[in-house]
This record gives sequence, structure tokens and C-alpha cells, in this order.
Amino acid sequence: MHILILGAAGMVGRKLTERLLRDGRLGQREITRMTLQDVVAPTKPANATIPISIVTSDFADPNTAAPLVAHQPEVIFHLAAIVSGEAEAEFDKGYRINLDGTRHLIDAIRAIGGGYRPRLVFTSSIAVFGAPFPDKIGDEFFHTPLTSYGTQKSICELLINDYTRKGLLDGISIRLPTICVRPGKPNKAASGFFSNIIREPLAGEEAVLPVSEDVRHWHASPKSAVGFLVHAGTMDLSAMGARRNLSMPGLSVTVGEQIAALDRVAGKNVTARIKRVADPTIIGIVSGWPRDFVTDRALKLGFTTAEKTFDDIIRIHIEDELGGKFAA
Amino acid sequence: MHILILGAAGMVGRKLTERLLRDGRLGQREITRMTLQDVVAPTKPANATIPISIVTSDFADPNTAAPLVAHQPEVIFHLAAIVSGEAEAEFDKGYRINLDGTRHLIDAIRAIGGGYRPRLVFTSSIAVFGAPFPDKIGDEFFHTPLTSYGTQKSICELLINDYTRKGLLDGISIRLPTICVRPGKPNKAASGFFSNIIREPLAGEEAVLPVSEDVRHWHASPKSAVGFLVHAGTMDLSAMGARRNLSMPGLSVTVGEQIAALDRVAGKNVTARIKRVADPTIIGIVSGWPRDFVTDRALKLGFTTAEKTFDDIIRIHIEDELGGKFAA
Repeated sequence: MHILILGAAGMVGRKLTERLLRDGRLGQREITRMTLQDVVAPTKPANATIPISIVTSDFADPNTAAPLVAHQPEVIFHLAAIVSGEAEAEFDKGYRINLDGTRHLIDAIRAIGGGYRPRLVFTSSIAVFGAPFPDKIGDEFFHTPLTSYGTQKSICELLINDYTRKGLLDGISIRLPTICVRPGKPNKAASGFFSNIIREPLAGEEAVLPVSEDVRHWHASPKSAVGFLVHAGTMDLSAMGARRNLSMPGLSVTVGEQIAALDRVAGKNVTARIKRVADPTIIGIVSGWPRDFVTDRALKLGFTTAEKTFDDIIRIHIEDELGGKFAA
Repeated sequence: MHILILGAAGMVGRKLTERLLRDGRLGQREITRMTLQDVVAPTKPANATIPISIVTSDFADPNTAAPLVAHQPEVIFHLAAIVSGEAEAEFDKGYRINLDGTRHLIDAIRAIGGGYRPRLVFTSSIAVFGAPFPDKIGDEFFHTPLTSYGTQKSICELLINDYTRKGLLDGISIRLPTICVRPGKPNKAASGFFSNIIREPLAGEEAVLPVSEDVRHWHASPKSAVGFLVHAGTMDLSAMGARRNLSMPGLSVTVGEQIAALDRVAGKNVTARIKRVADPTIIGIVSGWPRDFVTDRALKLGFTTAEKTFDDIIRIHIEDELGGKFAA
């Protein structure tokens, strides 16, 4: 089985690649080949025992998609996107990459024809929802994005549903919670602080908290995100009918509960490294974000998280990223 | 005030043009100029006392929009589309006209800049909803289109919301009920029979009913549709916040109730001209369509129908289209 990962150099793409190479299979089928694409060259995994092609290309370019699907990968994980803050600041770039890129991809799949109908797993976002909304957003709540990023994700969900309905591909769009704890350096996402206030203090560094402790948000670990993608790549999608888009399970916690969990797991010396510096811009953006979900549909379809509490999320980070140790 | 109507040669476009010329004003402002565009030349209204430009162009052409908005019309009524049956049969054509055309339009508006921020009234459709759904669809129910047409309308709603939020235009998308009684000849819409079974018998002709009498659907008269458009073109949209899309009021009736109303208004000789010939294709398409709505939001925003009962809808047709007479 040949797997294509678009946006493979990103954090989730790298972790998905590692997981797939470790498993050696996706569902029942052996993985025999992988293609890793991104706008910056994805690192070629060391010690891989199967052929891995590295492709560096601009997802917005109308000529990018055709050669990527020419070898007819059976499963395509589509993680290519620019993040919310960047899509908001660079209007044209956001539409070119996050909307036009996806259209080029599904039209390239369609152009192959001859019964080629790959599984397409698209990473959507809870940014398809915008305030005001209920305390818990259910599976049938409407899409009211308040960012261009959320608009683009919502449009791609609709396109993938329609192309799937027409038999042109076998698509599913999964809305990931905010990934926490995100390893590495901060990116341009306004949600960065949710991870910064855990990751930096555990590394002995100060972190800035720009919002108040009563801000509630929806989280899942990188390990859970990869688990959702793998499940979406293997499950029988016929149970979803024509509605191939849904919100993933997660944990709803306040910033105060995040800090209390960090205190329990790592101690007061660590939480003392969090500095409160209010940022009105970030406060404004975050106030329009979802806080909690009812994800009965995803749970019924077999999507599960790797964590039960935010303490688990911190422990997963210490285990997977810090080799079990932190700066006490 | 300069008004541009896109898709002006269609039934609603013609009725809107007539209404605007009759009123001479839109809201508080005098209409000083109109531009009527369609893929077939709109008929130039006789006896108009203001300059009217007729433009024949393909809405899907990337070069169509710029000259239309170059004179900076203050209000744009966007009715240009191919109908559901055609968009389903001709996949590429549907996306080119119903999606790309709208993008060309809003990007052409944006390209003018300099504070140009016209009111854009977009005719969306209840086809953004697809079964299964509740008996009555509320204002916060999610979009689950089961046709490419509904997908394209839903995407355009999202784009117009985002461009409005970014201050690039002043948009509103209104989802019209099925227009009944549609005058003239049948078009390619699968919903044609809802009008055929009223219009044809009143003209002394036979009509085919392809579905059973218990099929329930959501209707508004052409007069109501024009009223919705005029209200959308004049109302203060700030009350809508970022959610510039909504379902219009209408009447929910079964086909049997339509026929009973025709019987009351026109008599048994007229209803005897309806022939039952089941059409499995149309039965299948119609089974995925909405049947009833709760439109509290539209009512609160001042949208009102011209009719209280389906008898009124038939009387409006006899009055407006048949000069008060029918073939008894």
C-alpha cells in the first residue's frame, strides 16, 4: 500500500510518519511505499525499510497535485495548510493554499479516473465554529467561522463531501481539537500559548500567559491526533453516509485547570515560570473560539483519545518529547 | 443609486427589475441607473425613465465581473446560477458558474478598493440542507447538502460571510423557498412539478405529478421572493452580526394540500387535469429535500411573505400572471 502525506514536515505530519513506519501497516494492509510532501523538504526518516519519496512543492501551485497522485496512492493524508493567524493576515495566501490547493488536489484525483478512488483524510478544524454558540457544540450545530482559516476549512469539508458523494474519492474530514502539548518552537497560531505554558516551564523556561485563567478550550494530545488520523485512514466510512465530516473527541479544560494539572504533575517550581501578560488581541481572538463539544458521533464511529485528563496530556508530553524528564 | 442585477433574465430577475422600476427607489434612495446582466440578453424594460445597460456575458468567465462592478453599483443582486438538476448533470459547469463565478465577482469588488463596499444580496437555497433532518429545520441546523448545487450555494454563503467580515463588501445570503407558482415554461429544476400542477391546469393544460400526494415541501410566491430581495437590499445588516446568511419564511404544504387549495380556488374541472405518473428519479431527489422550517431569525429581521395560505399563492398567480382569469 502506498501512502501520501501532504504537509508531512509539520508536527502532526512528522508524528504520523513515525507512527506509520513503526506500525509497518495501516489497518490490515502492509505499507510498501510512502510519499512525503511539504513546502519545505520533510526529513527523510532514518532506517526506513520501504521506499520513501520526498517532494518539496507549493500546495497552492496548480501543477503540484497531479504528479503526487500520478502513482495512485491508496491513502492520502491531507495536512497541508497555513495556520489561522497567517491566513487571517495574508488573505490571498490563505485562500490559495487552504482552499485552491485542496481543489487542485481533488480535481487531480478526479482527472486520473479509471476507478481510482483513494481514501482522503482531511484535517479540518474546530475553527469552522465561531461564537456565539452553546457551551457544548453538538454534532449538528451549524458552521459559523469567524476567521478566513475556519471559512476555508469549512469549504473544503463541503467539497470533500460532494466529491465523495459523486464517487470521485473516498473522503473524510476530521476536526482536530487544539493540539496540546505542541512540541518544538511556537508557530504563528494564536492558540500557541495553550502549549507554551506547559512546554516552556517543563523545559526550565519562562512562558507568557496572555489570557485569564477562566478561558476554557478543547484539547487533544499529538498522540490522540495521530490516532484519529490512523483510524480515519482505515475505518469503514460507509457508516457515515453522506456526512463525511465530524468533530473529534477531546478534553475541555480551563487555563486554570491546565496550570493545576501542571502543578500536580511537575510541582510549584515549574508553574512559577508562567508569567501573566494580558494581550488584548489574543484575548479577542480566543473569545470567539469553541470551548467544549459533544462528540457522540465520533465516539460511536470508534474515534478515541489517548488521554482521560489533562494530567495525562502533560505526562504524554514528558514521555514522548522529554524522555521522561523535566526541569523541576 | 446604481443597481446591478446578475442573472437578470431569469424569472426572479425579471420580476425584481419590474418591481424596482415601478418603485423608482430602493429604500430611501432614488434609483438612477440599472445594469442587467445574464448569459442570454435580458429584455430591456419598455418605458423605463432611467438609463438601463444590458450586458450579455458568461458569469463563469474570469473577465465578466470586473467591467460589471467598474461603475461601482451601490447594490448588487446576485441571482446568477445554473439550477440543481443541471449542476448535478454537468459537474464542471456547476462549479464554474455557481462557485467560481461568485468568487470572480467578490474578488472583482475587492480589487476596486478605495472604500467601495457594495451591498451584495446573494440568492442561496434551501438545498444547503439535505436529509436526514428534523421535521422543521431551525436557524442553527448544519449544512448537509446532497447535491452539487446545494454544496456550491453553501460555499458561496461562507465566502460572502468571510468577505463581509473582512470589510470587503456588505453581503447577505438569503435562502429562498421553492418559488411557486413559477410562471412560464418548465426549467431543468427537479422541483418543476410543484408549479406545473398548478400553472398548467389553470391554463387548461394537463400536468404530470411524479410524486405521491403526501410529499411535503416549502414554498413562497414570486411576489414574496422579490419582497425578500428588496428587504435584503435595504435593511440595516448590522443586526445580523457576522452571520449574514439565513433561511427565508415560507409555507409548508403537502402536494395533496396544494391540490385541495387549487380545488377551492379553481374547482374540480381544473384539478382533474393533473395526471399521476410516478417518476422514481424525481421521487428519489425530492425525498432528500427539506419539508418545513422555523424561520424566527428572518421574521425578527423583518422578512415577510405576501401570502398566508397556499390559496393565496394560487390567487397571486392568477392575478399577476393570468390577468385574473383561468381556464375553468
